[in-house]
Order: sequence, then C-alpha cells, then structure tokens
Amino acid sequence: MVRKNKKKSCAILIIGNEILSGRTKDQNVSFLASWLNSNLGIKIEEARIVQDIEKEIIKSVLDLSKKFNYVLCTGGIGPTHDDITAKSIARAFKKKYSYNIEALNILKKYYGNQFNDPRKKMAKMPEGSKLIYNPSSAAPGFIIKNVICLPGVPLILKSMIHNLKKYLKPGAIIFSSSISCQTVESKIARELGKIQKKYKKSVEIGSYPFFRLGKIGVSIVIRSSKKKNLQSCHKDIIKIIKNKKIKILKGI
Amino acid sequence: MVRKNKKKSCAILIIGNEILSGRTKDQNVSFLASWLNSNLGIKIEEARIVQDIEKEIIKSVLDLSKKFNYVLCTGGIGPTHDDITAKSIARAFKKKYSYNIEALNILKKYYGNQFNDPRKKMAKMPEGSKLIYNPSSAAPGFIIKNVICLPGVPLILKSMIHNLKKYLKPGAIIFSSSISCQTVESKIARELGKIQKKYKKSVEIGSYPFFRLGKIGVSIVIRSSKKKNLQSCHKDIIKIIKNKKIKILKGI
Repeated sequence: MVRKNKKKSCAILIIGNEILSGRTKDQNVSFLASWLNSNLGIKIEEARIVQDIEKEIIKSVLDLSKKFNYVLCTGGIGPTHDDITAKSIARAFKKKYSYNIEALNILKKYYGNQFNDPRKKMAKMPEGSKLIYNPSSAAPGFIIKNVICLPGVPLILKSMIHNLKKYLKPGAIIFSSSISCQTVESKIARELGKIQKKYKKSVEIGSYPFFRLGKIGVSIVIRSSKKKNLQSCHKDIIKIIKNKKIKILKGI
Repeated sequence: MVRKNKKKSCAILIIGNEILSGRTKDQNVSFLASWLNSNLGIKIEEARIVQDIEKEIIKSVLDLSKKFNYVLCTGGIGPTHDDITAKSIARAFKKKYSYNIEALNILKKYYGNQFNDPRKKMAKMPEGSKLIYNPSSAAPGFIIKNVICLPGVPLILKSMIHNLKKYLKPGAIIFSSSISCQTVESKIARELGKIQKKYKKSVEIGSYPFFRLGKIGVSIVIRSSKKKNLQSCHKDIIKIIKNKKIKILKGI
C-alpha cells in the first residue's frame, strides 16, 4: 500500500440512549481507534455520544464532518422507531431519504418471504450512499460524503469493518511504544515535560498512573508518525528512568 | 430529600488521548450515568471525548456548559505536562489559574517533605473553584460555575463521587424497566412504534438486539420520570409480546 505521510483524522459519533443511560458500556471506540490506526493510519481525534434525537444527530454530523476527514457513526440503523440515524444524516446533508435498490435486493434475498416493512426500513438511507456490506446480519452500513454509518452491536460492526477499507484513504500510521515503571507521576513529571518540549509536536508523550496487580506505577506512552523520533524519544525516557534508579516493570 | 420534578441534564467531557487512541477503555461514562441518575436524578444527555489540546477543551467546556445544567469533566488534573484540564477551564471562563490555598494545604499535609513542584501543580485551578475532596490520593477535584472536574482514574473517581453530591441540585429520578424476549426486532418494531407514539415524550422506549448466552433476542428498555406511565407502558409491551406468542427471557 502506498502511504502518503499525511495525517488523516476521524471522529466517532455514537448514537444511542443506551450508552448515555449507563445500561450499555461502549466497546466500539477502543476497537475502532486501534483498528483504524493500525490498518489505515487514521487517527480518532474526537468522539461524541448523543441521544436518539434528530436535531442532536444532525448538529453533530455537520460539526464533525466539517472538522475531520471522516466521521464514523455507530448505532441507530436497525428496524425500530428509535433507529433514526440514516434519516437524520439524510436531513443533515439535505439528501432524499429513500430506498437503496441494492440494499433492498440484499435484504430481500436474505429474508425471503419474511421481508416485512420494518426490515425494509433498513434499506432506506441518504440518496447517493454507497453500501458497506454486512456478512453477519445482511443489513448494510453506508457511506455518504465523509460520513460512515455502521451498526452499534460490536460483533456485527467488527464483521463489517474490512468492507469499509476501500472507501478510506490511508494516512500516516502512528507508531507507539510504552514504558511502565514503579514510580509516581510527580517524580518524573518535570523531566517528561522537558522531553516533550524537545520533541514538540513530533512525538506525543502521555503519562498514566496505574494501580493494578498490586503495584503502583506510571505508564508512559509515546506516539509518533516518525519512527526515528519515537525511538530517540524512547531512549531519552529510559535514560531519565535509569538515572533516577526507578524500576522498569515488564508485562504491565 | 425533597425532589422537584424537574429534569436536570448533564454532559460528560472526557479529556484524554489515551481513550481516543484505543489504549484505555473508558469506564467512567457508564458509572457516572448510573450513579447520577439513581442518586440525584441527573440525566447524562451527551458525552464527548477530546484530546489533550487546550483549544479543544475550551471549546467543549463552553459549548456543553451552555447547553446542560452540569458538565462533568474527567481526566487531565494530575501533575504531568499533559494534564491541562484545570488551566484550560480557567481560560474558558476567563478566570485566573492560581493556587487554591485549601488544596495546597491538603496536599502539603499529605506529601510532607515530598511536596515538590509537580505535586503543587495539582493545587492550581480556576480562581473561585470549590473543592471536591479526594479520600484516595488527596489531590482534590473542583467545581467552577456548572463545570465539575474529577480525575480520570476510575477507582479514584469512584471514591470521590459522594463528595460531589452537595454541589448538585437533584432532579427527577428516571425510573426504568426492561423486558428481554426471544425474537428479532423487526417482529415487534411496528407495535413498539405505536406504543412509543401513545406515550409520546413521557416514556422513552429503546429496542436493543442481543446475541449472548447462545440466544438471539431483543431487550426493550423503557424509561420515564413518571412511574405510573412507566408501569402502564410496561403492561402494553407485555401484552403485544404475549399476543405474538414470543417467549420472555428472564435473567438476561
């Protein structure tokens, strides 16, 4: 794959009262973020969770589609009254909300004589959308302009993700490395700050305290699209940790 | 507790590259949503995850604090260079970003002669903030106007949540009930849509397909601040399920 060393940004828009009520824990943000970065070099730069309310969906779709290269919506494309994502996106872009003939044929074949009206609804989408095929449960996702629509159920979403690839232009892969050590953040904060200044925007340094497996520590995570800078930054961090005689923890 | 039957809305703003990169899975949205609703009748109506970038934090804080009764920020209040939440909120509200004397005293007592500059930073916040005490690791959260700031580490956040209670005005508790049954959404979609129309905005009906424990089914979740409407809506749904001879699943 030819990769241009250009950053590609994406936002995730999760549509669903069940996530905001606390009933369902979101599992899609971390999966999508990891998958998009490692497969396509696309970086998630914002995520939003909004209610099943048309004007909220429209506002977020328009905001995010202006701000980022791609917007990946999940949830709200099923057959019930609370599935209003496709209609809302059609309204956001002033497109007709109508049956996609290809989607209708896929669903007709899949459901046979059980193809009722609620199931037909799953073939309705903004006019001009291209389909993202669904090998699990037939009902396709779609892409219109730079907005992608996938179902919210994690298992189905995961089964469809490869069919999305052809619509997205890859960006620069972000490489990352992490160092966990037995210390507290304040012991290394000043030095980390200095290293961050040295690498300015070429390497992003994150510091995350943890309390697990009976140990207190800090994970330092560094990211960069430039492998050399990442390696050099990694060495600088190891150096300050060794200078301070802090124990490095493996397998954390 | 005297409760006014008034809705209180809240947004969650998660600040942290580690969530957007996929490295860390968010655990706070579902906890906060459940806790705020069951303890205070406050409903989460939007959530956002933004990068550790000052202008992004400022924009989201201002947007959300205008739109909702409360904004609950998590993450970015530690001692390292990437902890910029307190400073960004100060800038958003054009407040001085300065040491809070009470926070400084708490931290001084806690750290003793280990009270270095990075730790002192945790006492800096927007002028006029009130403290939210932290029984786990001393560094307090704060509230300024309608914006609350808590740490991102779930264990610490959970230990502080009770100290937040006194600053929030309770709203109407949202009651909920759920019915899981062995069917597919499209079999009940039309009838659920009709029931939703009957109860308009007084009951919110959500339909969520699932595939677990070897079973395919649908969970219907209903929510309302009005217990009577909820009960009546519950009965209506049970009626359509029984009419259609669909099996109700217990313990799902």
